[in-house]
Amino acid sequence: MESYFGQKYLRVQDDLKHIPRGTILLEDQIISGYPHVGRILTLNPGLSQHFQAPFIAEEKIDGYNVRIFQSESGIKALSRGGFFCPFSTDRAGDFIPDALFKKYPDLIVCAEIAGPENPYNLEAPPFIKSDIHLYIFDFMRKGKFEFLSQDEKKEIIEEFDLSSVNTFGIFNADQPQKIIELTERLDKENREGLVLKEISKRNHRAKFVTPNSSLEDIRTTSLFMHDVENEYFVNRISQIGLYMKEAGRIPDDELYRQLGKALLDGELNAYEMYLKEGRVKHTFRCRFHGKNSAYALIEQLNARHPHGGIQKRSLEKEDDMWVLEFDRVFAKTTGLFGYFIGGGLLFD
Amino acid sequence: MESYFGQKYLRVQDDLKHIPRGTILLEDQIISGYPHVGRILTLNPGLSQHFQAPFIAEEKIDGYNVRIFQSESGIKALSRGGFFCPFSTDRAGDFIPDALFKKYPDLIVCAEIAGPENPYNLEAPPFIKSDIHLYIFDFMRKGKFEFLSQDEKKEIIEEFDLSSVNTFGIFNADQPQKIIELTERLDKENREGLVLKEISKRNHRAKFVTPNSSLEDIRTTSLFMHDVENEYFVNRISQIGLYMKEAGRIPDDELYRQLGKALLDGELNAYEMYLKEGRVKHTFRCRFHGKNSAYALIEQLNARHPHGGIQKRSLEKEDDMWVLEFDRVFAKTTGLFGYFIGGGLLFD
Repeated sequence: MESYFGQKYLRVQDDLKHIPRGTILLEDQIISGYPHVGRILTLNPGLSQHFQAPFIAEEKIDGYNVRIFQSESGIKALSRGGFFCPFSTDRAGDFIPDALFKKYPDLIVCAEIAGPENPYNLEAPPFIKSDIHLYIFDFMRKGKFEFLSQDEKKEIIEEFDLSSVNTFGIFNADQPQKIIELTERLDKENREGLVLKEISKRNHRAKFVTPNSSLEDIRTTSLFMHDVENEYFVNRISQIGLYMKEAGRIPDDELYRQLGKALLDGELNAYEMYLKEGRVKHTFRCRFHGKNSAYALIEQLNARHPHGGIQKRSLEKEDDMWVLEFDRVFAKTTGLFGYFIGGGLLFD
Repeated sequence: MESYFGQKYLRVQDDLKHIPRGTILLEDQIISGYPHVGRILTLNPGLSQHFQAPFIAEEKIDGYNVRIFQSESGIKALSRGGFFCPFSTDRAGDFIPDALFKKYPDLIVCAEIAGPENPYNLEAPPFIKSDIHLYIFDFMRKGKFEFLSQDEKKEIIEEFDLSSVNTFGIFNADQPQKIIELTERLDKENREGLVLKEISKRNHRAKFVTPNSSLEDIRTTSLFMHDVENEYFVNRISQIGLYMKEAGRIPDDELYRQLGKALLDGELNAYEMYLKEGRVKHTFRCRFHGKNSAYALIEQLNARHPHGGIQKRSLEKEDDMWVLEFDRVFAKTTGLFGYFIGGGLLFD
C-alpha cells in the first residue's frame, strides 16, 4: 500500500501475466500499466517476425512515459512504474483540456513528456527549446488492459485538437526499406526513431531507433557511466552497428570520432566536475504552477535516491511559475572517481 | 581434489587470507598462487599512497601469467588459477634451461607468456611477430608465500642468462612525472605499461598501463563485447581519460576516432562473421613439441568451455612441431547476434 497526498493505493511492481508493472489500484479504479515495448535491431526479418498485419509508424519521442487520468481529487499523472508524479500532475493541465475528461471520464491518456526542463531525463529532443512539451501516443480506459484502436485515438485527438506524436503512415512487414528511408530522414534531424504499432486487435508494438539517438544516449550517459546498468553502452553500440548494416551505410571516420568523443568526453567532464565540486552531478530545472508540487517532487525524489542523492538548489518564482533547481548526484561514479583520483587500486 | 595426467592435487579457488587463489598442494609441495596486482589510475597521489620505499619499474607484458616449477615427473607450468597448463608445460623447456632447476629445485619461476600463437589471449605485443616468448618477472620458492628480492632475482637471471622483462630503473613516490615520461614512450611503441614493485620486505606492487594498451584491449574485445564482464569497457575508458589528464594531454579527434573505431568495428566484424559462419569465434593457433600436449590442452579447454565452446580445427606436424588450430566460440555474443539478426526484441 502506497500513498500520495493522503490517497492510498496499490501498485503492481512487476509484470504479472497480462497486468503490466506500474498498474495501480486506486479506490475502485484500476489504471493499467503501460506495457513494455521491445526494441527491434534488424528490420529484415524483424518486421515479418513481429507483424501479422499492417502497422502504423509513429515518432518516438525521447522523454518519459506518463499516464494521465481523472481521479476524484482531480487530474493525476503516473510515471511508468506507477508512482504519482507531482511534476507531471502539476503540468498536465497545460496540455490536456478539462473538457476531455468531462466527456470521457474513463480515459487514460498515455503520453511522453520531454524537454530540457524536466526532472528525470538529462537529454531532450532538439526541437524542444525550453520547458517541456507533451505528446500523446495512446489512450486506454480505466479497468481495461488494452489500448484504444488507432481510429478511436485519432478521433479523440482531432475532436480536442490534442498534442500528439507525428505519424508517418501505414506500412507492411515486407517494407523494411521504407522504414529505413524514414529513419534515415529522422536520423539527419537528430530525432529518436519510431514506434511501430500493428493495426489489429492484438496491437503488437516494436521500437526502432536512429544511430544518432543511440549516440546521444551514449553522449549523455558517459558523464555517469559507472552508475548505469552495464549493458547500456554495449547494447547501444550494437544498435548503431546493426543499423549501419541494414541501412547499407559504411561507418566513416566521422562516426568513429563521434562515438569515441561521446564516450571519452563524459568521462573527462566527470573528472573536471569531481575535481571542482567533489561530486559528479547533473542540475535539473523544471517549472511548476504550484509551490507544493515542487516540494512533493523533491520529497519523492529523496525517497528514491536516499543518502543525499538529490540536493535542492533553489525554488523561486519566475513570472507566474515556480522554478525548481536541484542536483542529482551520481553516487557510484562520484565514489569511483574519488577512489581512482585518490590513488585507489582497481583489481580486475 | 583435481588431477592432471593421473597426478592428484588440491587447488585454492579463492584468496584465503595470505594464500592467493591458484595456490596448489601437490604431494608434499605447496606452490603459492601469484597474488593480484592492482591497477593504479592516478599516479599523483597514487604513488605516495602505495609506496613507502623506492620501487623498480618493470615492463608489463600483455600475455598470460604462468608459474613454472620442477615436479617429480618433470617441469610443469600452472596457469594463474592453478590449473596445469599443457601448452605452457610443453613449451617451458624452450625458455628455461634444466640446469636452473637442477641448481635450485625449490624455485618457482613466475613469468608472462605472450605472442600471436598462444591458446588464451587474442592479442599479443607488437614486438613478438610469431609463436610465443616467455618473460620472467619474479621467483618464489616452494612452500613460501613471498617473492625473492630484486637482487636475488637479478642474480639468478644473470647466472642462467634467462629471458626476463625489461626494467627501467628505480623511482620514488615523488616522481610521478618520471613515470609518465616512461609510459609516454611505451605508449608510442604500443607497449602495455609498467608494473611497479617496491624494493622492501613487503614488496608492494601496482600496475600502470598506457592508453594505447587500453585501446588495444577494447579493439580486441569488441568482437565479443557481450561475453565480457560489463565493467570491461567502462573501466578502460576511465583509464584512458585519467591517463590523458595526468599526462597533460588533450584528447584529439584522432584519439576519439580510434576509440570509436575500436568499439564499432568489433561489432561489425562480429556481424559479418555471424552472417557467414553462424557464430562469432576466434581461431587460435599454437605450436607444441608433443602431440599429447595438444590433446591435453583441447581436453582441458573443453572442460572449461562446455557446450561446444571449443572446436578443434586441425593438428598437423610442421617441421618438428605440432601445430594445433582451434576455434573458441563466444557463446553469448553468438546467441545475441542470432537473436538480434533474427529480429528478436531487446527489452531495456
